[in-house]
Amino acid sequence: MPTLYHHPMSSASRFVRLILAEYGFQTDLVEEQPWEKRREFLTINPAATLPVYVDDNMRALCGPNVLLEFLDETHGVLKRDKRLFAEDPFQRAEIRRLTEWFLLKMEQDVTRPLTKERVYKLQMTAAQGGGAPDSKVLRTARGNIRQHMKYLSWLAGSRTWLAGDRLSYADLAAASSVSVLDYLGEIDWQETPIAKEWYQRLKSRPSFRPLLAERIRGITPVSHYADLDF
Amino acid sequence: MPTLYHHPMSSASRFVRLILAEYGFQTDLVEEQPWEKRREFLTINPAATLPVYVDDNMRALCGPNVLLEFLDETHGVLKRDKRLFAEDPFQRAEIRRLTEWFLLKMEQDVTRPLTKERVYKLQMTAAQGGGAPDSKVLRTARGNIRQHMKYLSWLAGSRTWLAGDRLSYADLAAASSVSVLDYLGEIDWQETPIAKEWYQRLKSRPSFRPLLAERIRGITPVSHYADLDF
Repeated sequence: MPTLYHHPMSSASRFVRLILAEYGFQTDLVEEQPWEKRREFLTINPAATLPVYVDDNMRALCGPNVLLEFLDETHGVLKRDKRLFAEDPFQRAEIRRLTEWFLLKMEQDVTRPLTKERVYKLQMTAAQGGGAPDSKVLRTARGNIRQHMKYLSWLAGSRTWLAGDRLSYADLAAASSVSVLDYLGEIDWQETPIAKEWYQRLKSRPSFRPLLAERIRGITPVSHYADLDF
Repeated sequence: MPTLYHHPMSSASRFVRLILAEYGFQTDLVEEQPWEKRREFLTINPAATLPVYVDDNMRALCGPNVLLEFLDETHGVLKRDKRLFAEDPFQRAEIRRLTEWFLLKMEQDVTRPLTKERVYKLQMTAAQGGGAPDSKVLRTARGNIRQHMKYLSWLAGSRTWLAGDRLSYADLAAASSVSVLDYLGEIDWQETPIAKEWYQRLKSRPSFRPLLAERIRGITPVSHYADLDF
């Protein structure tokens, strides 16, 4: 069986797990702590990014962007109305732009600093950079959440799904980041009812269940994390 | 005619200009200073990344990743042996991985900090963050160049082109970053003869000429910058 190297609090890992689940694709999951820079892991992926998919012939595919395209080319094209991508090149461009927005820009502004300070630093040794969260970094990242949720609300309010009429990679990318932040109790849902309605729809999908059932050592999720009706 | 918003020292902009030139595609070029965060520019691309392509119907395509896929879907597929992408999904994944390596990882480790400190800060006002280069940032980025050039040499030495037997997006991405660094005299070519031979081949292509002819206000390139035999 193919293997997916992932981390439960990496939004890119969650994104690829959602794609695989939507397409009914089984893999073994191996948890990787990318900050350990394990030699074997760097041999597979010199960029040390997650997730990494290794197929039965030991061929590796690294990172969410490479994987989303590969999974579309090898599986998505056969899925007809369940395909998570579009046919039209402009529509595909919009799905890619938004997927990148959530997995690169929101990641950089919000998700990565918050997970690093609140999750990874707890698991890192002092030599790896572990320790207490940096309150200045937390403050800046939290200041950025509101703007990202506003953009998400605007998209969710003006379209059926984030990139248009159909569920797409863009929704899975946004929901991955949101679910990580929601685990940590960083999202004020009362402020964003439109985004909340959209996230409820995502959360109710069977592909989401394994993510909602997962728990991180040492960090309890907010009480509503796994509730479909929150 | 379509318009490409770019900056002459942005490797992602150079990358897309090379693709357009290889495919014989004409656009108007508009220089954009992304740190100015012009309102009209942010309306087109909220992520404020470069380059941005606006077609004749005013539809915008933002960033190198969205553009490389779009240009392949609309032009590359018709180019037969001049296509800058492969047919095989695994080969495509390798081209994407390397393109991302040069335009995201090398960008983050080397190209962005060096251009920011040495080029952009000269053009920025004090309020925008302009001023003298930070010597610590320069030192770190320069320390990272060697490792990136070593990886590039390894790829160029073990394959005809970086991702395999044919010229691909991976070569154009790497050459874009390298050409920016070379303009600034940051590359020690004596140390990397294999990468040099590969870069000579790239530099000699007609698509490269406009880049080699361009000059940045206030910064003279190294003497060999435009020489095909350096």
